[in-house]
Amino acid sequence: MPDIRIEHATILTVDADFKIIDKGWIAVEADRIVAIGSMAENIPPAASEVVDATGCLVLPGLINAHTHLPMSLFRGLADDLPLFEWLQDHIFPAESAFITPETVRPATLLSCAEMLLSGTTTCCDGYFLESDVARAVCDSGMRAVLGQGVIDHPAPGVPDPSRNIEAARSFLSACEHLSSRIRPSLFCHSPYTCSEETLLRTKALCRETGVRFQIHAAETKWEYEHLKETTGATPIGYLDRLGLLDPDTLLVHAIWVDETDIERIHRSGASVVHTAQSAMKLASGIAPIERYIALGIPTALGTDGSASNNTMDMFREMDITAKLHKIANWDPTVLNSRTVIEMATIQAAKAIGLEREIGSIEVGKKADLVILDAAKPHLAPLYHPESQVVYAARGADVRDTMVDGNWLVRNGKCIAFDLEAVQAEVRRIADEIRRKGPEGHR
Amino acid sequence: MPDIRIEHATILTVDADFKIIDKGWIAVEADRIVAIGSMAENIPPAASEVVDATGCLVLPGLINAHTHLPMSLFRGLADDLPLFEWLQDHIFPAESAFITPETVRPATLLSCAEMLLSGTTTCCDGYFLESDVARAVCDSGMRAVLGQGVIDHPAPGVPDPSRNIEAARSFLSACEHLSSRIRPSLFCHSPYTCSEETLLRTKALCRETGVRFQIHAAETKWEYEHLKETTGATPIGYLDRLGLLDPDTLLVHAIWVDETDIERIHRSGASVVHTAQSAMKLASGIAPIERYIALGIPTALGTDGSASNNTMDMFREMDITAKLHKIANWDPTVLNSRTVIEMATIQAAKAIGLEREIGSIEVGKKADLVILDAAKPHLAPLYHPESQVVYAARGADVRDTMVDGNWLVRNGKCIAFDLEAVQAEVRRIADEIRRKGPEGHR
Repeated sequence: MPDIRIEHATILTVDADFKIIDKGWIAVEADRIVAIGSMAENIPPAASEVVDATGCLVLPGLINAHTHLPMSLFRGLADDLPLFEWLQDHIFPAESAFITPETVRPATLLSCAEMLLSGTTTCCDGYFLESDVARAVCDSGMRAVLGQGVIDHPAPGVPDPSRNIEAARSFLSACEHLSSRIRPSLFCHSPYTCSEETLLRTKALCRETGVRFQIHAAETKWEYEHLKETTGATPIGYLDRLGLLDPDTLLVHAIWVDETDIERIHRSGASVVHTAQSAMKLASGIAPIERYIALGIPTALGTDGSASNNTMDMFREMDITAKLHKIANWDPTVLNSRTVIEMATIQAAKAIGLEREIGSIEVGKKADLVILDAAKPHLAPLYHPESQVVYAARGADVRDTMVDGNWLVRNGKCIAFDLEAVQAEVRRIADEIRRKGPEGHR
Repeated sequence: MPDIRIEHATILTVDADFKIIDKGWIAVEADRIVAIGSMAENIPPAASEVVDATGCLVLPGLINAHTHLPMSLFRGLADDLPLFEWLQDHIFPAESAFITPETVRPATLLSCAEMLLSGTTTCCDGYFLESDVARAVCDSGMRAVLGQGVIDHPAPGVPDPSRNIEAARSFLSACEHLSSRIRPSLFCHSPYTCSEETLLRTKALCRETGVRFQIHAAETKWEYEHLKETTGATPIGYLDRLGLLDPDTLLVHAIWVDETDIERIHRSGASVVHTAQSAMKLASGIAPIERYIALGIPTALGTDGSASNNTMDMFREMDITAKLHKIANWDPTVLNSRTVIEMATIQAAKAIGLEREIGSIEVGKKADLVILDAAKPHLAPLYHPESQVVYAARGADVRDTMVDGNWLVRNGKCIAFDLEAVQAEVRRIADEIRRKGPEGHR
């Protein structure tokens, strides 16, 4: 007998046919979806727990494919600034002063709560002190691909950059046996902050251990011109020349690319994460994702860190992505709602290498599910569920969130961990940041 | 003794200095703000009702300066389509078949609920059967400027377009004595759907009765080229030539303008409403609002109708507007959070002619207030309230909404009217639309 049955829901399966089941049911046993049906056609199996989802939409858990979880500490610390001023005068000093093993845990759990409450069940993260991030995400009940940051500058937890590969290797060991929900990865900061040797050694370690290689690449015009000047190649061309592009590489941003770069990504089998809101807010550019999608390059959505967006609500990300590319292409038919939902689910699962486990509601997949309360006035009337999800729904409409067969949000409340205690701790840290200033010694 | 005292709040006054009061209080008597202070500096006056707003942000009620309230019936009916196909094959037939005095009331109340629940206290509307819209808005408790639509085609309530001015005049009479919250206005659909005579007669009637003249203008490239071809002038140039631009004119969209047009708007004293999301979704263009703002042209934000956005959440509109113009100008400092909040409050009040009554929290102004619950994880930490409001908050964070000194939303629930009955009625109408198809005779 299944453990849980969800019934009377409109189910967006996001399977290969994008099947939508009216008045459907889903049966969950342990961590898996074991049966799916429609109330009209099959009698659902008995279950220990029956969840009525009348008037609700059920989606596969959303996947946020680019985050910096502990940066929730710096949400709104400095906005409306040029990129370099923002980084040099605010974010880098604050990271160096306030990102410690003690602060990473509450900051990460705050991000997990925000994600779970807004329907995200999996994230793909890249940051420093990532083994602390991993323990916190593990305890939150979420699923994640977590990348230890590699950079040729002093970083939180790695004051001596010559030991960055060593730190990466010890992160991979620390993740072993943590949880089947946590997949380790390595995350090179960028082609301009990592030397050729660092890039090559990191990728070699990824290949040796079978983990995903993430990198911010081709984000700004400055980076594009800088790489051309220093390496004679575009950012993507440079990574390709080093042999870093393959199906286990995840390119974050991929905004500043030429025709040859697009072909390089396509041919290599690498994936892309698009961060529309963050790129708009920092005015870095608009990635040609219509091209990526047309070529079949797995293209995911990510919110980026809370300091640059400033939320992790994937519903907002889907909506803005669709609208941005319509106006950027002068074509309202570009990126329709189905495409955008796929970018936040099954395409994202492909991009992070988990498409056999998550990204759609299908028998045998992990039970990562989101129930949206569609009875709210801004979600009425309901003609096309996929339109409503992208253009009208928001994270706050999430009623329940399940990861790995466990309820982590019920009736809009986080039941995964003690969120109040986490928020109290974040307030204490923020008070210190406010008092000491971003450099930590005001 | 004041009737209501709100205390312990972070108050964004949006006054001329954009003063933010930490741990502040506001006293309300009848429909007016009668005193404002800080808990640290003054003892707040006794009041019949004391509202604790610890951990909350208080904002002036937001102003949505361009809506088509009854179009909530068509939310998500047809998306991701080219503008003309969307209008001709879906929206116009649906309006002609389903917009009746009976459907306008629940559709309008649904929009009012959505707006009140997301912190909008005033809207500026333009549609047909506007006297029915007016009665519904009046009953909702909201404040509004409501414009009867004028167009040279058969329209709901005005099957014979030769009687459109007569219908406009009778709408103005119907609004007399309705409520001090309801200000009538007239709304010409566009320079390409109204003849020169219709435009002139409508504006003359506006001048005669002292009401605002609204018009969709310079929305699409097609319109720009069409007007050039048929009148020899740009859309704004044509309106200017007809003498229609003055301080009581509200130009909706104003996207396709040349340098002379910008100067024409500036010189005339006319105002502009910017609808970023709707213009992105329909791929119509990006208005040069940085220029308008720099010249001091009152520039408001509007969501447009729910069929083209698809929500009326002004928090989302503020966020997307700021981000869109940063990327469109390649400058992350453009439209900072203060500017965008002003566009949704005091600048909008100027644009709709109500700046002496609403748009900021100041003694003597109407008590139109919004209390945001800032204790949610996506709103932590709180460094800069104005950043949080624009880049992190969403309509669902609204705890309480007051219009004219009356609570219309408490604890996230609409207490202004029977929302459940309205939703049941909307569901019934939507079932009919689904059954009969947009043309009403499937």
